[in-house]
Amino acid sequence: MTILETIRGPQDLKALTEAQLGRLSGEIRDFLVRAVARTGGHLGPNLGVVELTLALHRVFASPVDRILWDTGHQSYVHKLLTGRQDFSKLRGKGGLSGYPSREESEHDVIENSHASTSLGWADGLAKARAVRGEGGHVVAVIGDGALTGGMAWEALNNIAAARDRPLIIVVNDNERSYAPTIGGLAHHLAALRTTDGYEKALAWGKDVLRRTPVVGNTVYEALHGAKKGLKDAFAPQGLFEDLGLKYVGPVDGHDIGAVESALRRAKRFHGPVLVHCLTEKGRGYAPALAHEEDHFHTVGVMDPRTCEPLAPARGPSWTSVFGEEMVAIGEEREDVVAITAAMLHPVGLGAFAERFPDRVWDVGIAEQHAAVSAAGLATGGLHPVVAVYATFLNRAFDQLLMDVALHRCGVTFVLDRAGVTGADGPSHNGMWDLSVLQVVPGLRIAAPRDAGELRAQLREAVAVDDAPTLLRFPKETAGPAIPAVDRIGGMDVLHAADRPEVLLVAVGVMAPVCLKAAELLEARGIGCTVVDPRWVKPVDAALPSLAARHRLVAVVEDNSRAAGVGSAVALALGDADIDVPVRRFGIPDQFLAHAKRAEVLADIGLTPVEIAGRIGASLAAAERPAPDHRTVPPVRGED
Amino acid sequence: MTILETIRGPQDLKALTEAQLGRLSGEIRDFLVRAVARTGGHLGPNLGVVELTLALHRVFASPVDRILWDTGHQSYVHKLLTGRQDFSKLRGKGGLSGYPSREESEHDVIENSHASTSLGWADGLAKARAVRGEGGHVVAVIGDGALTGGMAWEALNNIAAARDRPLIIVVNDNERSYAPTIGGLAHHLAALRTTDGYEKALAWGKDVLRRTPVVGNTVYEALHGAKKGLKDAFAPQGLFEDLGLKYVGPVDGHDIGAVESALRRAKRFHGPVLVHCLTEKGRGYAPALAHEEDHFHTVGVMDPRTCEPLAPARGPSWTSVFGEEMVAIGEEREDVVAITAAMLHPVGLGAFAERFPDRVWDVGIAEQHAAVSAAGLATGGLHPVVAVYATFLNRAFDQLLMDVALHRCGVTFVLDRAGVTGADGPSHNGMWDLSVLQVVPGLRIAAPRDAGELRAQLREAVAVDDAPTLLRFPKETAGPAIPAVDRIGGMDVLHAADRPEVLLVAVGVMAPVCLKAAELLEARGIGCTVVDPRWVKPVDAALPSLAARHRLVAVVEDNSRAAGVGSAVALALGDADIDVPVRRFGIPDQFLAHAKRAEVLADIGLTPVEIAGRIGASLAAAERPAPDHRTVPPVRGED
Repeated sequence: MTILETIRGPQDLKALTEAQLGRLSGEIRDFLVRAVARTGGHLGPNLGVVELTLALHRVFASPVDRILWDTGHQSYVHKLLTGRQDFSKLRGKGGLSGYPSREESEHDVIENSHASTSLGWADGLAKARAVRGEGGHVVAVIGDGALTGGMAWEALNNIAAARDRPLIIVVNDNERSYAPTIGGLAHHLAALRTTDGYEKALAWGKDVLRRTPVVGNTVYEALHGAKKGLKDAFAPQGLFEDLGLKYVGPVDGHDIGAVESALRRAKRFHGPVLVHCLTEKGRGYAPALAHEEDHFHTVGVMDPRTCEPLAPARGPSWTSVFGEEMVAIGEEREDVVAITAAMLHPVGLGAFAERFPDRVWDVGIAEQHAAVSAAGLATGGLHPVVAVYATFLNRAFDQLLMDVALHRCGVTFVLDRAGVTGADGPSHNGMWDLSVLQVVPGLRIAAPRDAGELRAQLREAVAVDDAPTLLRFPKETAGPAIPAVDRIGGMDVLHAADRPEVLLVAVGVMAPVCLKAAELLEARGIGCTVVDPRWVKPVDAALPSLAARHRLVAVVEDNSRAAGVGSAVALALGDADIDVPVRRFGIPDQFLAHAKRAEVLADIGLTPVEIAGRIGASLAAAERPAPDHRTVPPVRGED
Repeated sequence: MTILETIRGPQDLKALTEAQLGRLSGEIRDFLVRAVARTGGHLGPNLGVVELTLALHRVFASPVDRILWDTGHQSYVHKLLTGRQDFSKLRGKGGLSGYPSREESEHDVIENSHASTSLGWADGLAKARAVRGEGGHVVAVIGDGALTGGMAWEALNNIAAARDRPLIIVVNDNERSYAPTIGGLAHHLAALRTTDGYEKALAWGKDVLRRTPVVGNTVYEALHGAKKGLKDAFAPQGLFEDLGLKYVGPVDGHDIGAVESALRRAKRFHGPVLVHCLTEKGRGYAPALAHEEDHFHTVGVMDPRTCEPLAPARGPSWTSVFGEEMVAIGEEREDVVAITAAMLHPVGLGAFAERFPDRVWDVGIAEQHAAVSAAGLATGGLHPVVAVYATFLNRAFDQLLMDVALHRCGVTFVLDRAGVTGADGPSHNGMWDLSVLQVVPGLRIAAPRDAGELRAQLREAVAVDDAPTLLRFPKETAGPAIPAVDRIGGMDVLHAADRPEVLLVAVGVMAPVCLKAAELLEARGIGCTVVDPRWVKPVDAALPSLAARHRLVAVVEDNSRAAGVGSAVALALGDADIDVPVRRFGIPDQFLAHAKRAEVLADIGLTPVEIAGRIGASLAAAERPAPDHRTVPPVRGED
């Protein structure tokens, strides 16, 4: 039996010896490599926090003390130590979440995957304890990358405001978010890491001055009074202390004893303390350490020895198609520049950055800044392409609206991982953009249905210089090309029937689903038109009159049913006094648990069978007479 | 002729003598007090930046050099110096905007009123100049209050990353946002302000050490090497310099010569520089200085001598009703706490703060933190009420969704200034919330129609402890009570007719508009039902069957037509296979120019006459047979 297998909860760690802890660390790393290779998941970050997590659970008493993980993908070790050692279905349906989960354990608090939140949560929890007169410690573990997010700053400013409210911030400094951490803060943390320590310097000064008794005392006292200043000279922790946080560190995050000692000091302090731990992403696993790009931040299913993927992709990803086209556009247009929020490679900008290093910026985990600086870039005469995961654009909604759109800036937003993503759980799905962004005046939104359309629509987007544009596509491999059989207005007709009753409006990658649903309906004698509107905002001017030639309109989108493209289509029809019934298919008003994308789509009924069935039922319920084709305006493109 | 009248543009300032500049400053202050008293507007902030603005326009050459105002309400002096001296219709229809406006002047860049954006804009503009090889300076003027916003941190981190890209940040430090600035940063700025200056201290040290020749040199050299550290001891500008920004200051912001000298130093530096200017909000106008609450941040139309309002409110404001009820609830429930983002008094929490000082937090201009810390507070066992202006909640969308709603936290959001606000222009309207928040699972939204409903619904909201709730109300005075004549499901029927053809769904303060529209329709023989759904999300379960008893449903909301309550109602009807036509009335897909609320509503057709006319036209277009009442399910509450 391994030591790991004997750990049922944090209390089982308390009695372990130093040697046992060393063995346990090794067992945990072996476990992580084997387990994550089998299911895919976040590997590098968890290999980096083995000793830190052990120390945290030895020094603090979770769940009375609250340990908050920012972001939650570094919580695998924490799971192993809090009674969750079955990783066989990690991130799969019915298995462990890839993030903390209150349903799984009373030791978990923050479930979402968005970075920089832990300090705000900690501030709230600490305030609640103060109001209720409760004891217990609140500990937030935040990476140096997450500290670049504005939320972290807002929280630090608030935490520092109450100098007698205890709260412990552990900075897990591995010099990276996904990629190396950027900006002034990174420089500052580097300064903290590399300085030799202030105590040594002070000792030297004291020694020198003792040998000059006449003025030595005076000067020493002056220096002592100026202790903070002198300390800064040799170990400039100024930033945090200037804000009013006590600073402890830097500490070797792989030395359990050293981390425990620092945490115990922090625990005794009656106010906000920052403990600076230096860790190595991918620690103890040579292939991860050797991986320059991201130290195996996330891996797919792979052979743990060779690191070869065991389920290789069966075609180019949407991401890679975007990345290629960006390079091609960049060659043609010097004014096209790119922005990423700490995810250069995951969003496909690696090649662009290599080719045009002066025209791409990693702004840190700072989506707000990505959007607002894009407004500045556009006003300055360039055309920025902001590439982010769909779920993270929610952080920049106000900036897209108020800075980019209000000022009519030509900025292209490219949303990767749009729609149901699956394994990363509720906070990684990109299922809000087509709804939330409906209100942004002037914004044009496209949802390409295949790789060719992505290339074409990206070019259409960067050609717009007086308004923002947005493209969205999913995580999956781009499927085969889906040809248009006709064009009406700006819309591609993907399928037509002689006497169509149902108009299926297929948003982006819902095209194959709609074509299949149409097939099922036509097998029942119900003729269908399937149209890809290409640009879903604004609604194509030709859509209402096309709709008027059908008995029912079904809008199918990989997005919330509330407020999405279905809502926009219904509004356009109503404005034209065309009252063909509209049915909206999409994601219901709920958070989606982790599972494979296909499993989630099946669970929520976003499949051809379910869609066709619902349409058939609506038609039956309506028993409406066929529309009078004579009173309906002609369809553009058919005259 | 005054000197001010001779200033047609910034170039006219260059030749003025010190004495003339002094006179001009006085003239500008007189002008501001008279002009703003006449129209209402931002007074205190502009009185504080007279000399600073003069210095900026003398040292820099706008518009080649770009001067960015954060937030734009401190740009009145800038307007006066750039050819805009007709303040007679300030913030009124056709008059000058209360913020910078590109339409008004080539000297203006950032139009929106949301704080903390200028540094991000500056970063983008500076990057664009670097890529395009253009010269010219970029200068951002940001208040100490705006520095508490996360966007400012994200931008500082990025600006500091490029040490050779010139960019000048002027911190206009008046120790306040609306109210005094909070947090660790405020402490740090205070330290910068109050220290005696490092040069003096260094001179003293040098003098002492010169008298001890043996070790003096060594120690002095050590100190000199440690210059930054020692400097920090006496003037701890550490925070900004640690990030990699050169720090200049503090400078008396009312000494034009001193400010100019600091700006000229900054201009010569080839990298990012921060110039710290100390100013006084309300400077030169005794009533403003004497006003503890906000130094006349904004004023209404008033007598400039007595400061008595000339258009006093004719009833209690929505804000004051909310504030009163909060105190009453606070007396009854110890777990109810409150959060404001730097606007304690404007959102009506002043009395609550006085009564329960330990149960209210001003988090700074930091809406993200307001929401995420509320999630922490709720998880810690309290019920936070987050009170913000509707437009500013856009900053916290991701946190409301991912931190509050995903974790099912009982947090009540209260949105003041919802709907069309008018005078403050496009970025102050609260016209997005009912649309954007439709996608938040579990969120309940109420729009009270009168003061009594606000009190009642606030109590219903704070009673929910496993999901977020949200209330929204406008800026105006709360009107008279509007009685219900019936209740169906959870909805109040405000008006009923014998043979109703049209169902008007009146969202919140649209109730009187809908009642009037119903009156107009009934005068034409078209019977109407007017219903206030009270809780607009989720849609009341009784609404579809009620709708089925009408020929047309009109949803009227003081919110974007896209994706709002109208969309939710249409979705609910479609889901029930009830295909009564729905018409949505609200704010069209555009930004709204500044004007009085009533003028804006008239311009966008959100009036009883327009609504009734449009409904009549739709009914005529449809010429549909009356619905068959036998096939329709019975309405709940009528059985």
